[in-house]
This record gives sequence, structure tokens and C-alpha cells, in this order.
Amino acid sequence: MSGPLEGVKVLSFCRALAGPFATMILADLGAEVIKIEQPKLGDGTRASFPRLNGISTYFLSVNRGKKSITLDLKNEQAKEIVFGLVKKVDILVENFRPGVMKRLGFDYETIRKHNPKIVYGSISGFGQTGPYSHRPAYDMLAQAMGGTVSITGPVDPEAPAVRVGYSIGDMGAGIFGAMGIQAALYKAEKTGQGQWVDVAMMDSQAAFCENAIVRYCATGEVPQPTGSRHPLAAPFQVFRTKDSSLVLIAANDKLWEAFCKAAGKEEWIGHERYRNRQQRLKHYDEFEKDMNALMQTRTTDEWGRLFDEHNVMWGPVNNIEQVVNDPHIQAREMIVEVEHPQAGKHRIVSSPMKFSETPIKIEKAGPELGTDTDDVLSSLLGLSAEEIENLRKDGVV
Amino acid sequence: MSGPLEGVKVLSFCRALAGPFATMILADLGAEVIKIEQPKLGDGTRASFPRLNGISTYFLSVNRGKKSITLDLKNEQAKEIVFGLVKKVDILVENFRPGVMKRLGFDYETIRKHNPKIVYGSISGFGQTGPYSHRPAYDMLAQAMGGTVSITGPVDPEAPAVRVGYSIGDMGAGIFGAMGIQAALYKAEKTGQGQWVDVAMMDSQAAFCENAIVRYCATGEVPQPTGSRHPLAAPFQVFRTKDSSLVLIAANDKLWEAFCKAAGKEEWIGHERYRNRQQRLKHYDEFEKDMNALMQTRTTDEWGRLFDEHNVMWGPVNNIEQVVNDPHIQAREMIVEVEHPQAGKHRIVSSPMKFSETPIKIEKAGPELGTDTDDVLSSLLGLSAEEIENLRKDGVV
Repeated sequence: MSGPLEGVKVLSFCRALAGPFATMILADLGAEVIKIEQPKLGDGTRASFPRLNGISTYFLSVNRGKKSITLDLKNEQAKEIVFGLVKKVDILVENFRPGVMKRLGFDYETIRKHNPKIVYGSISGFGQTGPYSHRPAYDMLAQAMGGTVSITGPVDPEAPAVRVGYSIGDMGAGIFGAMGIQAALYKAEKTGQGQWVDVAMMDSQAAFCENAIVRYCATGEVPQPTGSRHPLAAPFQVFRTKDSSLVLIAANDKLWEAFCKAAGKEEWIGHERYRNRQQRLKHYDEFEKDMNALMQTRTTDEWGRLFDEHNVMWGPVNNIEQVVNDPHIQAREMIVEVEHPQAGKHRIVSSPMKFSETPIKIEKAGPELGTDTDDVLSSLLGLSAEEIENLRKDGVV
Repeated sequence: MSGPLEGVKVLSFCRALAGPFATMILADLGAEVIKIEQPKLGDGTRASFPRLNGISTYFLSVNRGKKSITLDLKNEQAKEIVFGLVKKVDILVENFRPGVMKRLGFDYETIRKHNPKIVYGSISGFGQTGPYSHRPAYDMLAQAMGGTVSITGPVDPEAPAVRVGYSIGDMGAGIFGAMGIQAALYKAEKTGQGQWVDVAMMDSQAAFCENAIVRYCATGEVPQPTGSRHPLAAPFQVFRTKDSSLVLIAANDKLWEAFCKAAGKEEWIGHERYRNRQQRLKHYDEFEKDMNALMQTRTTDEWGRLFDEHNVMWGPVNNIEQVVNDPHIQAREMIVEVEHPQAGKHRIVSSPMKFSETPIKIEKAGPELGTDTDDVLSSLLGLSAEEIENLRKDGVV
């Protein structure tokens, strides 16, 4: 382990994605994350597809670098183990539906008695308070109920709705969860006092909709999906070319002039309806039609060379294969190879946080179920091999 | 101010969205964020639309709670002011293109000489290293080059590309930036040693594509947009109803059975092609057609009542107006009203991070340009009113 959070210990009751994404970030940052899993079954995402030699890639990606211990949380003997571990860690994270931790006997009020400095992070669909708090949630519910789906997708109001292609409903709450946990950790370090951090998936989507929300509140106009367009700028979107697609950013006057010159459309520089951003937005339907026709006259490579010569801002629309093989992504070491005893060597995406003094190293794959049970119980709680064996016989671990 | 980072001071050289979103999070958490802006002009987003009494809502939303000081960074006198301020703060954040801070004389190596404990956060399109590092970037470039656009949108490969409706290209780097900065702050608190945190927009999008990337690396299949469908589950998507749309989550066996009963489609429970998730995914085209026909037989309210009775997981597809007025969002205090001297009272979205002991309070609107210049220069640097007046005459502030 290395990274700025080296030495920090995290006990994780998380399953699926929102919570595990939060603890993945903490593990990436160097924290020791001890993931509690149900004996025999483990995290439900271990059953997900596709698999590598029988191991779920979904599980491998989001659990890299964590330790796995098994514990039947409903077993009375497990309670004492949890209370013991709680005394040894800095952070507890859970993403059960509100109320479950209380039923298990591990709610914040109980846990803090065992460790007043602990930061207790709860990540859930709707949070610990409010009328929907008891409801379960999955990614798509948060994306839809939090506003994201309503502003994402084709311009055509009759087109079917689309989701954000990655599970930002889960990951959004995970990342705000890790953020709040870190802030509380800093505070606890200064004061010796921990606290409960409550982050909801629906709230997190609303938080990302900040610009759409302030626009609606100010004007009363309800923001709509804009295809690949920016709501306030043009051209600032994806265009089809003769052979594929590209993003063109030429919204301000300087870039617009450069684009017109590159495209041999000097007459558009002072054009009555296209000369500036406001005019282009006002006459957008006509403008888009003209742009689509123009952009389809050259391939992406041909446009790219012209744009580079004229300092026009543009970029390719990369698919996942192109991202993985992109020379810049490679140079940034954003794709790393790790090894799992059964899945073997496999590649996953790295962390985007680059530190000059405590660099992140992603070296360890997602854990085998319960692979660290013995080590954690003996090193943190001082249990003997025989005691652990008895727990195993009793189905506790 | 209140919140877990109360007492932490941040000097911000950020403009537009990626950097300001990072410092917004730090300000929400209670840090004192001093935003440096160009005299007379300020952050370019002050010129953005729509406006409230002439004030940009874009600026107001993402800069709530910050202080604003003006400083002409190219002026020699400004250098000494920056070096003075750097000694008084814990964190510096900038989102210029790599190289700009060095040309201004404020690169990390120089700044650390004035304050070795400082955490220096750089948020940029492509990061401080790698072949694209010198390139400028806007949100849409990061969304397209980082893979996001390639997995978001309609299933139809001929459909025009779509963006994520909020600027996750910017905000993604902003949130990972704030995360890395917090981790480095914690480390600095323990060791007295600061560091440079480098976060790129393109890397951050790749990081969010984690599941698509591990799937591609494992199988060689390039993930494609899936409309509103989850790539691995069905039904887990948006359906049109008689009058609007809803999200239905009934992918596992228990929920599928509940759904079939609610919909009066008991024959689908053991149906050869629909009976489980794998079968439904395998026969998805036929399944979706049948589901679309079924879902259009009732209104969203009618389905909602049925689903609630049968414990089927569902939710509405809220537009921004519905999000703002949602009783749960209201109960979570996710919409707050702040007051700006010129824009007046206005509503913005709050933070999704809820703390039990150090609650976040969002009480202050985005600042007027330079409104804190005198206060910051006198309180942190001990400058007299006359000295500040002279700086103003010289165009330094």
C-alpha cells in the first residue's frame, strides 16, 4: 500500500456499487479496506457477468486492493468481532437500506460507544431521513428521480429515454460519500470526535444537476435534453464526419473565426445569423443543418489535420477500446494490470488522482472471498488459529 | 461558515467549471475559499446566461460561499501578494492549462518554497504529463475522448451522439480533484509536508468508465450505448406509460415475480424466454416490444399504485421542476435560498453530504467581483487602507 491515506483503516459493510465505489476510492488512496462479506456467497456482484475464469469482472474492478473477510452478521459471535474491529479502524462504511444496520445492532449510536472517533459513512438510495428514506434504490432510479435522465438524451422529445452509460447514480453517491468521509476523517484527526456522514443517491444526482437547477429556479424554464450540444454554446458538440464523428469546440469568436478559415467558410465569420454564439444559438436549426452538411464532406482525420493547423479545438469520440489504447491514457498509466489467483492477469482502470509525494499504486486485484479472514482476525483481534477454526466450524466466518 | 473543514483556507486560481466545482465542494465543507479574479472582468462565467438582475446564474451556483478578491496576476506587485497569501493558506487550487502557473511564477516548486505544507491542486483537461498535456479542453472533449459518449445514448448506432446532460467532463475532474486535495490535506496534517495533486478531465471520465473498461479488457467486446437499459439486467430501464414515463427495476427473480403479478401477467413468471434475467437479456428485442406494449396500457400513476401494492421497485422520471419541488428533495434540504446584493434571493442546489456533528450550511451566495479584496488583504496580509488604495490605483487589484 501507498498513497496519502496509508495507515488509515476502513471497515466496509458495502455491497454492489455505490458503497464499494466509495471504499474503492479510499483503497486507491492507500487506506486498508476490510470488506465484510457473507460466508460462502459474498458480495452479490461476485455472481455478475462477464467473468474471467469464473470470476466476475464487475467485482474485480470495483474491489481492487481491498481485503475480504467473511462474517455472518446475524450470528451473535459475529457481533463481538465487529465491535472488536470497530475499535481498530478509523472509518466504517455501509450501504444497506436505512434501518438494516440498526436491526443488526451496528447503528451509529451503538458503534460510537465502541469508538467515539470513528467516522461512520452511510450511503443509500434516499438517505437516512425524508419520506423516501425506507425505499430501496438502484442506479437507474437515482438517475431518473434525481433529474439526470430528464436532461440527457436526444433533442427529440419522442425519443426513448437514455441513461448515463456508466452507473453515475451509484458512483455519484459513492464519490460524494468518500468525500464526506474524508472531510469527517480530517475533522476527527483534529478533534478526536467522529461523526455520521449520510449521503443519498438521489441527492447526489440533484447536486450534479446544479446548473440545470439554478437555471430553472431563475427562469422557470424546464431544461431539456440537448443531444450532444452544450445548452449555452455552439458549436460545442459532436458532428458526424464522412467516416466517423468528432467533437468540435468553436463557440467563442476567436475559435469560430479559426474554424471558418480551416473549413474554407470565411463567409461565415461575419455572417448575419452565424457571426456569434448568440446568433448561432438563435438560428440553431438552420445552423446545425449547414454544419452537418459541411462536416460530412471530410473524414475525421482530414478535419483533424485542418483543425490542428488552424488551432481549432476538437477531439475524437473514442470508444472504450480506443480509450484503453490511447497513447495519452497509456502515458498517464490509467490502465494497470493486476493479478488474481483464479482470474489471472487482467487490466482495470487506475485512479485519476496523481500525487507528487505519495503516489497511488494499484497493485492488488479484487480479493478472493474471505482470503483475509484469518489474517485480520489474528492481527487485529489477536484470535488464535484454533479460535478462528472454531468460528469457521460454527459458520460465523 | 460551518462544516468539517471549518478553519481550512483555500486560495483558488480557478475559472469556469472544473476547478470551481472542486473549490465549491471545499467551500460547502466549510473551508474558506478565496477566489482570485481578474480586476474588472472576473471569472469568464460571470458573462454567462441566463442572468438574475444581470448576474450570471452559472457563476452564482458554482461559486456560492466563496470570497472574491481581484488581482492582476501579471503585475509584479501581485506576485508578492500571492506569495504572502500562500503562506496563510492550506490549499492552492488552479485549473489553468499546464505551464500557465509556471509562466506566472506560481508553479508548485516556487509555491512550496513559501509554504512547504501547502497542498497544491492542479485540475486540467489532460493533466500535467503525457502527450496531450498541453492541449486545452472543454467538458464535451473530455466526455468524448474519455469514453463517456461512446456508451451513452440511444441503442441505434445511426442516432446522433448525446452528452451527459450535466457537465460531468468538468465536474468529474473537479470532484476527483477535491478528493485528492482532501487526501493530501490529511497527509499534510500528519506529516507537515504538502504535495502536488494532478487530476485530468480525460482520466476522470475513464475512471467512471471502470465497468465498461474491465468488461472490454476481459472480453474484447466494445461496450455500446444501451438507451436507458442497464447492460447486465432487464427489466431495469425507463418505459413509456400511457401518459409519461417511469423506471422499472424488476431484474431479479423475486422482483420479476412481483411485477408479473402486479401487471396481471402471471404467465410470464415461468415463461420460457422471460423467466429469468439471462433469458430476458437473450431475447431482449422481443421482450422489450412486449413490455412497451404492456406499459402503455396504464398511466404512470396507475402503474405506481399497482407496483407499490406489490412491492415492485419503480420510480418516476423527474424533470428539473419536479426534482426541485419533490417532497423528499425538500425534506433533505437539497434546495436552499441564498441572497446576492444585486441578483436578490435565489435558489440553488445544496450539498448531498450530510454530517451529524458538523452540518454543512449553505448561506452565502456567489460573491460580487472583488468584494473581499480589502478584507482579505488587510486581515491576512496586514495591508493598510492606504496601501490597498494604492494597489487599486495601480490596477493591481
